[in-house]
Parts: sequence; C-alpha cells; structure tokens
Amino acid sequence: MSSQPEHPALLMPGPTEFDDAVLQSMSHHSESHIGPDFLATFGETLTQIRKLFQSTDPAAQPFVISGSGTLGWDLVSANLVEAGENALVLSTGYFGEGFADCLSTYGANVTRIDGPIGGRPQLPEIEAALSDKKYKILTVTHVDTSTGVLSDLKSLTAMVRKVSPETLVIVDGVCSVGCEELAFDEWGLDGVVSAGQKAIGCPPGLSISFFSGRAMQVFDSRKTPPSSYFGSLKKWRPIMQNYENRKPSYFATPSPQLIHALHTALTQILARPLAERFQKHAEVSDKVKEAVRELGLEIVATKPEDQAHALTAFYLPEGVAISDILPKLENRKVIFAGGLHKAIASKCIRFGHMGVSALDPNRNHIDHGLQSLRAALAECGYQKPRTRDS
Amino acid sequence: MSSQPEHPALLMPGPTEFDDAVLQSMSHHSESHIGPDFLATFGETLTQIRKLFQSTDPAAQPFVISGSGTLGWDLVSANLVEAGENALVLSTGYFGEGFADCLSTYGANVTRIDGPIGGRPQLPEIEAALSDKKYKILTVTHVDTSTGVLSDLKSLTAMVRKVSPETLVIVDGVCSVGCEELAFDEWGLDGVVSAGQKAIGCPPGLSISFFSGRAMQVFDSRKTPPSSYFGSLKKWRPIMQNYENRKPSYFATPSPQLIHALHTALTQILARPLAERFQKHAEVSDKVKEAVRELGLEIVATKPEDQAHALTAFYLPEGVAISDILPKLENRKVIFAGGLHKAIASKCIRFGHMGVSALDPNRNHIDHGLQSLRAALAECGYQKPRTRDS
Repeated sequence: MSSQPEHPALLMPGPTEFDDAVLQSMSHHSESHIGPDFLATFGETLTQIRKLFQSTDPAAQPFVISGSGTLGWDLVSANLVEAGENALVLSTGYFGEGFADCLSTYGANVTRIDGPIGGRPQLPEIEAALSDKKYKILTVTHVDTSTGVLSDLKSLTAMVRKVSPETLVIVDGVCSVGCEELAFDEWGLDGVVSAGQKAIGCPPGLSISFFSGRAMQVFDSRKTPPSSYFGSLKKWRPIMQNYENRKPSYFATPSPQLIHALHTALTQILARPLAERFQKHAEVSDKVKEAVRELGLEIVATKPEDQAHALTAFYLPEGVAISDILPKLENRKVIFAGGLHKAIASKCIRFGHMGVSALDPNRNHIDHGLQSLRAALAECGYQKPRTRDS
Repeated sequence: MSSQPEHPALLMPGPTEFDDAVLQSMSHHSESHIGPDFLATFGETLTQIRKLFQSTDPAAQPFVISGSGTLGWDLVSANLVEAGENALVLSTGYFGEGFADCLSTYGANVTRIDGPIGGRPQLPEIEAALSDKKYKILTVTHVDTSTGVLSDLKSLTAMVRKVSPETLVIVDGVCSVGCEELAFDEWGLDGVVSAGQKAIGCPPGLSISFFSGRAMQVFDSRKTPPSSYFGSLKKWRPIMQNYENRKPSYFATPSPQLIHALHTALTQILARPLAERFQKHAEVSDKVKEAVRELGLEIVATKPEDQAHALTAFYLPEGVAISDILPKLENRKVIFAGGLHKAIASKCIRFGHMGVSALDPNRNHIDHGLQSLRAALAECGYQKPRTRDS
C-alpha cells in the first residue's frame, strides 16, 4: 500500500501520516531558490493556497514561510495590530491562550473570552464585548487541538460584521485547514494562519497564512513599522508576490524541499472537490466519536455542534492512566497523543483523524486505531458500562 | 556516484548540493515529535551542535528551530539586547546591513561600521567605537555571502575582551559554520547564528544557533521580556534542554524530517576531524581563486586574508553581463549566483564551494564549475588579458 517502512500509525492531531509522493518530494535534489523551476513550483503553490481557501479575491495575499505553525501568531501580532490597540481573543483551549500570549508580547491590549472546558464562547457574550470597546482584531481558534472544540466561523463573522464591522476576524486554522469547511471570501474572514503538518498532509516546517485584501489594507495603514523582522509582512509580501509572478527575489532562503512537498500535497487535495474532502473527514470523525461513546467514554467537546472533525479528544475512564494506555497502544502500533490543555492534560487522550489516515482506506488506520483502543482499554482493566439495552 | 536524478550542479553560496543520505533522511516516515525515537534523534543532534562548535561549556545552549537563517538575527535582537541599548554592527556586505536592520526593528540603538566593498572594518576603528560608548553587543558576519569577505573572529574577540569585556560578541555564521575554522570556547565567542543549507549540507528550513553560558546569563538578566514570541529564547530554552535530556515537551512543532536530515549531515561531518574539513575547504577555495585570477578576473574580497573559503565572489569582465553568462553556465549544467550586495550586484557572480561539492571528488563539481566558467566566458566573447610571460 505504502512504500514507507512499517511503523506505528501516527494518529496524533499532528504531525499526521504523510502520503508517499509527498514524502518523496521532501528528497528533491537541491536547486536554486531563485531559479525558474523553483519559481514555478513556489508560484503555483501560492496560487494553490488561494484555491484551498476558496478565495478569488486578487487583493488577498498568501504567505508560505519557513517556521512552525506558531509563527502565524507572530505574523498577526506583529503586523495586524499595533502596540496599545485592543485584541479580543476567543479561547477554546491551549491554543487560544497561546495566541493571547503572543499578542501581548507585541504590545496588544488583550481581552480573552474563554469557553468552558469542552465548549466555546457564545455569541451574546462576544457581541457584548465588541459593543463595549473598539477592537482592532478578534482571533478565534477554528479547531483547538488541545480540546477538539470546533468554532462556528460563519455565524461568528456575520455577527462581528454587524456589530463591529471594522474589527478584523483572524482565524487560527492550524488544525482545521484541509479538513474543516472554510469559505474564506464567502464568510468574510480577514486572515487564517495555519501549518502544513495536519490536515494538509505536508511534513512540519512551514507557516501557511492567508490574509484578505482588507487585512492587507489595514496593515498598510500602520502608524508604526512591523514589530518583528523575520515575521514582517512588509518584508515577505513582495517576495510572495514575486514568486507568484515567477520573478526572482530574496529576503530569507525558503526550503525548496518543503515547498515541493506542500505543492504535491496541495495538488492531491485540489484534484478532488474540497466539499468531498470535508465530508469524508466528517464521516470518519462521526465514526470515531460514535465508537468512543459506544465504549462509554466522554468526549471533551460536549455538544455535537462544537465537535471538530480533525480529532477526537476524550476522557479516559477512572483508573486508566495516560502513562498506562499510550504504551499499550504503541505496542499495537498506534500512536495517540496525551492531553495538552493544563486543566485536562492528565485525563484525556487525543485521536487525530486527518489527511491520509482519514481518506485512504487502504491504510486502515481508523479501524486499526479503534480496535487498538478497545483492546488497550481492556488490557488496562476497563470494562465498558452496561447500557440499558444490554 | 549519486542516486539523485541528473541535474545542474548547484554551486551557489547556498543552498548547496546535498549528500544522498541526507536527502533520504528528508523522507523519513512520520513520527511523534515527542516520542522516544525522535527525542533521541533531536537530543543527539543538539549534542552534535556542541561538537560542531568545538564547545565543552555545559552552560552554553544550542537551539535548532524551524525557520530560515534570517530567524537567527531575530533570536539575537529580541533576546540579547533590549530596546534602547547599544549594538555595534560590523558590516562586510548585505548581511551586515540586514543584521543592523533587524536589531533596529527590536529597538536597539545601532551603530554600523562598514568595511570598504571587498574588505572588512579594521581593529583600530572598532576599538575606537568600543571606547567611545558602552555596547551591549557587537555583531559580525563571519562570511558575508554577498561579498565573500571573511572576518577574523579570533583577533576581533580578543580585542573586544580587552577593550570592552562585557560586550557580547555575536557572529552571523550562516555561510561559515561547517567550512571555516570556528573555535567557540577558545575564541571566547558569545553566540553564533547559522542555518543548515550551506556548509552543514542540510536542506533549508532550520535556524541553528549556539549561545555561550555568559550570553544566556545576560539573557536571564533582562529587565524586559523577550520582544519576539516565536523567537523567544525563554520559550525555546526549556524545550531544547528537554530534548537533550530526552524529555517530551512542547512549544511549537519541530520538523522531524529536517532534524533527521541535520542529524545525518552532522553525523557525517563529525565522523572526521573538523580541522581536516576546514583544510579541505581552504584547498578547494585556493584552487578556485587561483583559477579565477588566472582568468584575469578580480575577486571582490581584495586581500587574501579577507577571502572566505566558502565561496568566491568575483567581478565579471567589462562587457560580460550576468544575464548573459548565467544561462550559458546553466546550459553547461552549472548554477552560480548573481550579485546580491547592491553596490556590486550587477557586476559580480558568486561561486559557492561548500559541503559535498568541495569534499566529494566523485562529483567533480569544482573542476566542472571552473571548466564551465572558462567556456562560458569565451562564449561571451571574453579573452583573458595576456600576462607578461605569455
């Protein structure tokens, strides 16, 4: 099925498992980062990013920069908000807290609205905050990898446009882009920061972001220069525009190998309708969540409409420790992730179901993951509670 | 000779050509970034970095972070100097100017001493500046890729220690680490920022840096928090220490594939004495420079002691345009780089001779590069001037 050596199925919420062709692209021979071949590859990749975001706004700007997904927070915090300006952060877990921390580092006045553990802030509360003072930006985590909570970007953005039309709506889409519905133009988003190593299916090392024409205008109207150097959109915008126009230019050396891998991954993604990809991820997610509930376990994201399709975070039963079950899963050649959000880190594990693991039935990752989960829980002495029908 | 598909020899001053085993490591199957296998690989890699810098100071700290080499400037500027403090930048080309620009972005008061084109600032001038006011840090580009000028770190650091012992000496070693002699502890350096894609021979995408125990103490005595989030040494130090101690932790997802490639490259480098590696690069550099002079061409770095061994930047003859000769070279399957430093960009080309291209005689890159250069010049109508003896 795969030309990769046998190894445990990596079913963490990122990095995910990668397609063979994507991994082979990582070994691309060395080439000039400003030569015509690579200009074409990188240029096409940037145009593919537009399609991935279902955007046709020519003023919107894609950025692909060497770095971790975390770098996306710096891009937003050092460019789209100035020191002393207000930022409203909607938090649904660890990554909302991190985004707030990053915004504060660059001097924004941050107000954070935390959802309850396993839930998300509700519109009336957000609307009240927006009515209270003027916010330059609002940030929201589309899927928080620490809780598996999904945010409803469409309703949120519609409300913000009504209540505070000038506020930029910026999305952390690290764990959503490539598996959750995301209609950038249609929903009126101003920015999404993401990374390659989750549902996009490209090895880690790239910060991938997309900003609306409106966000770039707000950037252009800054009174102070960007407060990061490597993360300066002023430095990177001409470079990205030049690559998309096949013109050589230099700010910092890109990684041709990672860009080739991303190009391969995006070519695969865009070869099929995006709606089909989102639907398949939803079906796999439903299957995993049903199996988890069937085991008598509780999903961290409490309401069905708040449950992400990228991963399932669920609480371990009383008496089963993470340090017990993860090695038993690994013995069965499955790697899940432990908890990350400090409030629940010791109590939950996370089953990622993105990219090839969700889409390639030949890999059998999902069934193998669920079977291994049942077996490992039994090995830990867990018996599922009897239901009324049994 | 190589399992890579046939392609032009990439003889730019980075990215360089890569070893087959290094490129194969880039295709490593996906694995957990906090699992025991990757903890061991990354931990070993960090320990290898210490050896690469010939350092035995346990308080010194290596950092390997997803990003371009440029990110190293942010690490220095946002962590080792605070807004309003003085930084002295010694510039030998484009990259000195960039470092100064980055320091200013984070609020340092920058004084720049520029060498003449093709030369470097001299010790008396630097000493006078250091006597004039107190500088928190001094930065110097070991090899400026835009000019091929080499700095003399040993004499410089000895002078700084005498005149201004508290000033941190920070080196931009992007184009020197792995091919130029660099004795971190012995010379008393406080920091080197580098990247993988030049003489280290790892594909681009990693910022590699090393700071002395003293630099980390200065960092710890900051009055203000680090002014970058993704580039915060406060965030990264515990992560690097945990990897070196094989303990899982998380700040931002590293790139296991790039780390595997770096590990392979460093294992190859450290399998032989470093002195031998530096010597071989010097021999290849001497050969290239002799051939260039033999052609009647002028090397940008005027004095022999200022000439880097990583690359040779040289002026094209009157009447030969970069846009003429580079395609003719590429027809012969050789890629050189055009100019980069604005003062000479249209007049010089750059021949990189690092890593496998310098060390693996089977690749025949150096002779092929020189033969192609002679042929392309002839094709452009250039005839070398007669010497007295001919």
